[in-house]
Formats: sequence, C-alpha cells, structure tokens
Amino acid sequence: MIKRRKTVTVTAGSVKIGSKYPLVIQSMVKLPTTDVARCVKQINSLSEAGAKLVRLAVPTRNDTLAFAKILQKVKIPLIADIHFSAERAIEAIEAGAAKIRLNPGNIKNKNDINRIIDCAKSHKVAVRIGINEASIRNLLRDTPKRHRTNLMIKKMQDYVQIFEKRRFNNIVLSVKSSDVARTIESNQAIAEKFDYPIHLGLTHTGLAEDAIVPASVALGTLLQQGIGDTIRISIAGDPVQEVEIAKQILASLGLYKSREPQLIVCPTCGRCQWDLIVFAQRVKKLLKGIKEPLRVAVMGCVVNGPGEAADADIAVCAAAGKGFIYKKGKKIATVRQDRLFATVRKEIWRYKL
Amino acid sequence: MIKRRKTVTVTAGSVKIGSKYPLVIQSMVKLPTTDVARCVKQINSLSEAGAKLVRLAVPTRNDTLAFAKILQKVKIPLIADIHFSAERAIEAIEAGAAKIRLNPGNIKNKNDINRIIDCAKSHKVAVRIGINEASIRNLLRDTPKRHRTNLMIKKMQDYVQIFEKRRFNNIVLSVKSSDVARTIESNQAIAEKFDYPIHLGLTHTGLAEDAIVPASVALGTLLQQGIGDTIRISIAGDPVQEVEIAKQILASLGLYKSREPQLIVCPTCGRCQWDLIVFAQRVKKLLKGIKEPLRVAVMGCVVNGPGEAADADIAVCAAAGKGFIYKKGKKIATVRQDRLFATVRKEIWRYKL
Repeated sequence: MIKRRKTVTVTAGSVKIGSKYPLVIQSMVKLPTTDVARCVKQINSLSEAGAKLVRLAVPTRNDTLAFAKILQKVKIPLIADIHFSAERAIEAIEAGAAKIRLNPGNIKNKNDINRIIDCAKSHKVAVRIGINEASIRNLLRDTPKRHRTNLMIKKMQDYVQIFEKRRFNNIVLSVKSSDVARTIESNQAIAEKFDYPIHLGLTHTGLAEDAIVPASVALGTLLQQGIGDTIRISIAGDPVQEVEIAKQILASLGLYKSREPQLIVCPTCGRCQWDLIVFAQRVKKLLKGIKEPLRVAVMGCVVNGPGEAADADIAVCAAAGKGFIYKKGKKIATVRQDRLFATVRKEIWRYKL
Repeated sequence: MIKRRKTVTVTAGSVKIGSKYPLVIQSMVKLPTTDVARCVKQINSLSEAGAKLVRLAVPTRNDTLAFAKILQKVKIPLIADIHFSAERAIEAIEAGAAKIRLNPGNIKNKNDINRIIDCAKSHKVAVRIGINEASIRNLLRDTPKRHRTNLMIKKMQDYVQIFEKRRFNNIVLSVKSSDVARTIESNQAIAEKFDYPIHLGLTHTGLAEDAIVPASVALGTLLQQGIGDTIRISIAGDPVQEVEIAKQILASLGLYKSREPQLIVCPTCGRCQWDLIVFAQRVKKLLKGIKEPLRVAVMGCVVNGPGEAADADIAVCAAAGKGFIYKKGKKIATVRQDRLFATVRKEIWRYKL
C-alpha cells in the first residue's frame, strides 16, 4: 500500500538497505563495549527480538579491541558508532564492522574524513552520515529554530559531497532531532534531494512513557510517505523495547509482517455490561507464545462486534449475560457469560498445538 | 508550523470545532450511564485531564434519563452516542446534549434520520456523522479490503447529502477503522471532499500496549497533514489515559501547548559510564506536580549533551565520575557524580515555589 521512495541499495555485511529491501530495524547496545560477554548477550536478545543491525559505541582503543572480539561471537552485522576520532573508525572497519555511523561534523580534520572514506571503501563497509541537531547546536545557539532545518540540510549536502567526491556511494543518511516537526521536515527535504537510503530516528525522546508517542508520530508520518529504509527508536530504557516499538510502528503501516497474534479490543463504553478489559487482558495472556498472526477480537456489544468478528480468526462479542463466539466471522457458539472465557481458551489453544 | 485544512466552524455547546479553533480532545465514559454519580466523577477526571467534550452511551430510555441528570452536574458539554434509535437521539437532544454521534447506517428508517436532523437543528445541537468500518462490514463481508475505503467514502457522501438536503450544516465527520492505512486514506479522502470538521480516531486498537503506537501513527500522520479538528484515542483501559495520549500526540506536533515539564533523555550507549536511566527516572519524579513547560535534559555524554543543554532550562550531562549542570545552556556547575542528583534537585525545586 505504501509506495516507498526509490533509493540505491547500500550493503552492510549480509544486510541490504534500500527501497528494494524490507525496512531494517536497528538498535544500540547500552553497555560498555569492553564488557564483551554482556554485550554479546544483549546483541543476541536484540537479534532475537527482530533487530537486523546493532550499533556499539567505540570511544577508546579498548572499545575497538572489544568490538573486534564481539564481532567474532555474534551472527548479525554490527555498526560502530564513531565520534571525534578517525583512528576509532579505521580500527572498527579493520576489525570487521559492517557499517560505521559517522558525524563528519565532529571529525575536525578534513583529511581524517577522507582517510575514513578510503578505508570504508576498500573494506566495502557502509557509512551512515548521521547528523544530530544537538551535535551542531553549539554552532546554532543563536540560530532561530525555524532556520535549523535548513542548516541541517545544508550540512548534509556538504557532507554528501565529500563522500561523492571520493566516489563512495555506500552511504545511508540520517538527520535526527528531538523535535518531531523538524525531524519530519528535514527528512522530507533530504528524501527529495538524494536517492541514498535514509535511516530514521527521533532522538533523545526520553523514558518509554514519553518517547513512544512522539517517535510513532514522527517516524509513522515519514514512513507513510514512503520515506525511511532503516529505523531505530530511541528510548531511555531496555533496547529490546526499542525493537518492539519499531516493529509496532512498521506493522501498523503494513511494512513489517508480524508473526504475533493481534488482539482487537473495543475501548468499551456505557453499553458494555461486564468487565471486558479484564477479559481482554486474560485473552492477551493466552496468546503469549503463539507464533502466528492470529487475529482475535474482544468486543463489548453488537454495534461493532459482529463487524470486527468478520475480520477475525476468533472473536467474542458480549451482550447481557451472554457471549457469542465467532470463528472466521461465523458464529459458532452462544454461551453463558461465566462459560465464555473457558470456551475462548479452548479455541485459542487449538492454535498452540 | 502545521497548516490546518480550512473548515467551517461547528458549535457543540460552549465548544467550537474547526480550523479556527484549537484541536478538541474528547473521550468517552466507560461506565453504565445509569450510574450517575460515578459517571459524573469520571467526566470530571476527564475534564481535569484535558478533555473538552465527553461522550456517553444512551442505549435505553433509562440511559437518556440518567444522561439528563449527569448534564446538570458537570461543567463540560456532553455528547450522546446514538445507535439504532431515533427516540434516544431525540431524548438526548431534548435533555441538553451539545452534540450527538450518529451512524446513519444503523438508523433503519430514513424518516427517523430526518426527525433527528430536524430536532438537532431546532436545538442547535451538533451531529457527528460517525462511520465505523466494523459497523458496515456485514455489508462488506465479501468486499475485498482494498474496496472498503471507497465504500466508506461513498457512504459518507450519501449521509452528508441527507443532512445538506435539510440545510443542516452543524456536522462533524468521522471515518474510523481498526486499520491504520484505511483510516489514513479515508480521512484524506473526506478531507478533500468536504469542508466540515473531521473527528479523528483509530478504533478498537486494543489494550494500551497495543493501541498507543498505531493510534499515534495514524492520527499523527493525518494531523501533520493538517487533517483533524477533534480527536479521540481509543484504548481498552482508563479513559484518562486516552486523554493523556491525545495530548502527547498533539503536543508532539505543536498542536497542544502542554503545561507539563518535558524530560529529554538520551537513550544511552556504551559511552555512558553510569546509570543514566535510573537517574532520569528520579528526575522525572521530581518534575511531578510542576505546572509549567520546563524543559529538562539528562544526557549521558559530551557528544550531544551540550547541544541538548542549549535548548533546555536545566540540563545534566555526565562524564566519567563528574556531572555538568547547565541552566538555559550555560554551564553553572561541575560536581562529583554523587552530588549530581542533589544539585539538580535544588535547581528543579526552585520551579516548585
């Protein structure tokens, strides 16, 4: 349904990034890179949750040494997050990074940037040019907010030129901000100007309860317009949750095929004559562990109940004291309310076999 | 920043709906309407949370009688949710509803629809024409999903015509579905065809953990395109949370001016040498009860820390064993890590006075 913006294909190890390939979910390790064993464990959890690429910080020489060890112990390609230092970039590339994330703005020496590009080129490594509004704000302290988008785009044009001059095209672009409007605007602008894949993210959004809504608004809006080839949700919390939220955003737009059951529940209102929400929570628990896209609907009354049942594999619709059970839209049983949960459970258990 | 689509203005009691007025947040009471005392309490909680209109179900004559009593006891305008019955609509309007929500598709007799329109007109009550995909699905069981959007739009055109024929223009339109793509498409289509205000909602999205992301994606995408004049988030859960999420969606796009503090937190990575997330959670607790849009940033390192500090009222940026405290972008203190929380607390407490 969504027509993705056409991009060139970028290769990061075994992962292809661009409009010809599925959206790539990423996350980042939140442990000191030198803690090799725990990093490996976190990467495996992220991979199991659905991340196809994982990024690690490598601020010191010890970190790139640890990065090299981690690479030997995990199956998915890794990204090195580079700031300030060309040495770290080169060490990470030589260690086997599939991709590096670079903010050319904080590599002071232009020759250093060229050294990184040449090294990435000879090792066939991808580079994300990652602009973060906060990283250029010191330049912008007195720039009104309305000019920041333009400044970020201008920076991106300058950086891309450096890469293109050296005939290096294995690049992914990203412009991140903690502001939703500027994130949308600046990504729309770079989507128009370039045909490189775009990495989407809203940055520094905070704790989960503060981060999920703005990230969904910003990235959902862009994805719906076909913009975005790889995605990372930033949450000050468990990185596995970042992957789960990324999957939810993509799945909501049909850009990710979930193997998880989906539970449709009406929000209830004064028509609803029993505790549907508690019932739905119990059904949700039943669905844990099922690895197929079963669609289950729990509906409180006849206004929309039969309608949602028509699209569901299993549906429950409750009326006064009675419950109706549907299978693929067909009513298969009418039971007393106190028998309803047991009947639904029996139907769902069939899918667990 | 967002240019809202131009609409006519609709009046629902003291609330104006349309592009000339701020987005209106709504929710719905989730208790039997006959439970007057608890309904009044829930409406007051919703109003305090930020809802400007609250809807109640009135399936029976006893419900409209209770609705009339509730109206006397609350300060905000109320909406009656009508299905199947012209009598309930007329009773609710005569009781003093500011607006009714009507799905003309389930009022079988065309003359009944006209009676409702005439009654609303003489009482200067607003009507939302509310199409819900699930309510027409029985007609559509064999209609491929790709045709449903068109069918919903066709229905809306038919219904609007009925109202316009009777020269009744105090209408708000809504097309809801539990599917994000169809919700976006169908609202874009009615936004083009009509200049009546649009009520946005994604319906039957489920428990909070399943509902928040798709609702944010669907409604955020539409709002960013200027579509939507009133909004309701459907969550199978506490309706106050529906209002909170609506506020978060609107605030993320600059469509709602929050009086709450905002807490920016970096997601942390291997660079971060202390437990920033726990620190941020403690700061979040400090911010509870502050009723001004204080912007606080908690950042894990010097890559983006000083940049986020530039936009924040108070910021913390941590490095090995030390913490830097910023006020309006200016570094005001460098303290030992074990002194950091106390120092930040002192700064935040100043805003509590």
